[in-house]
Amino acid sequence: MQLFFHPDLSSPSITWEGPEFHHATHVLRQGPGMTIHLTDGAGRLARAEITHLEKKKATLVIRELTEKPAPSPEVHLFVAPTKQIDRMEWLVEKGTEIGVAGFHFFTSYHSERRVIRKDRLEQIALAAMKQSNRLHLPVIHPLIPWRDALVKAGIYPVRLIAQAGGPTHLTALAATKAPVALLIGPEGDFSEQEIQEALMAGFTKVQLGEYRLRTETAALIAAALIVPF
Amino acid sequence: MQLFFHPDLSSPSITWEGPEFHHATHVLRQGPGMTIHLTDGAGRLARAEITHLEKKKATLVIRELTEKPAPSPEVHLFVAPTKQIDRMEWLVEKGTEIGVAGFHFFTSYHSERRVIRKDRLEQIALAAMKQSNRLHLPVIHPLIPWRDALVKAGIYPVRLIAQAGGPTHLTALAATKAPVALLIGPEGDFSEQEIQEALMAGFTKVQLGEYRLRTETAALIAAALIVPF
Repeated sequence: MQLFFHPDLSSPSITWEGPEFHHATHVLRQGPGMTIHLTDGAGRLARAEITHLEKKKATLVIRELTEKPAPSPEVHLFVAPTKQIDRMEWLVEKGTEIGVAGFHFFTSYHSERRVIRKDRLEQIALAAMKQSNRLHLPVIHPLIPWRDALVKAGIYPVRLIAQAGGPTHLTALAATKAPVALLIGPEGDFSEQEIQEALMAGFTKVQLGEYRLRTETAALIAAALIVPF
Repeated sequence: MQLFFHPDLSSPSITWEGPEFHHATHVLRQGPGMTIHLTDGAGRLARAEITHLEKKKATLVIRELTEKPAPSPEVHLFVAPTKQIDRMEWLVEKGTEIGVAGFHFFTSYHSERRVIRKDRLEQIALAAMKQSNRLHLPVIHPLIPWRDALVKAGIYPVRLIAQAGGPTHLTALAATKAPVALLIGPEGDFSEQEIQEALMAGFTKVQLGEYRLRTETAALIAAALIVPF
């Protein structure tokens, strides 16, 4: 099944245009009477028929609409972006494939990178969602300072901060159905003060074994050990 | 701890030269009397002292030698390389970080790529081993045809082939201490005949959930669910 994206599947007849429309009709030669599968990235899957085709748009009628719940537990990654942005792009691609609910980026004391391209990461997430046949598009949140991230992450019932050498292994805390916020530090790790602030905000230190994982590896593997497969 | 590589730590006094020597002494300014940590990639860690320094080489005396067992179970990935080679490079980097024992590459019916650069992948594995403070360097095996890979994978006690939609989930088979061979198909998946050949050779189909993962994602996540953390 080839999956396309349409942000609004709430009415029975929809107008389709833009690059995906163009790819489906001009490259893949989809035309009137043919069936297209669309998701809105919010859990809905539509089986729709092309009823009218013009050069720059088509009218589709939804023949069947199904809905899936989001992966549970929800995993919300809070990551200090790496110096090399391709490592974050890969995290977003892989994290989307395995069902991460949201990517939050923050700057911290040892952060080397202070800018991300949110639109580019959104495109990567969209492509990965379609490629993996998922119906939930993770949210790419803007880059914010550490303390704002701590407040934002604080709303989730399960609050974890990745820390090498801590007493608790992630797998001991992974069996939860409640939404999880997981903080992953920069390449130079969190500062001592940041760790203290997280502990005071009710976060639990978790470790991922005795070896030193890169920021993006730690984030992906931790998510993989929490999300359902 | 910054870890360096030396292929032979079997005698108490060693000669050190090459790019790592150069980096340590010329860039990091390590000199006589200073301590260097070295691994041979086969489980050994040496704490050594620089006793004599020349421009192009140094003599090191090993003061302490410790040894670690390899991660158990061993995971041997058998992967049909992806069209984009950077996806394989990333698999080797991340797989090394999490403790994969070996990477085997094969060409199969639907393979798009028929060549890999073994030396480049070895460099990536070496860098990832040192970066993650591991003492075991995974073996990068040359690209071989599908049937040879099947014979090679057949020597491992636990033999798995990743297949979407199968009855058995990987996690049901992941709790093993015996070495595992895991076959991951190309982007166009295995052919029906290849799957039959694997089943006849005693492989068990395992799936990784209902979504479509890319080759390299499937390989990494499957390994992460098997290796110990």
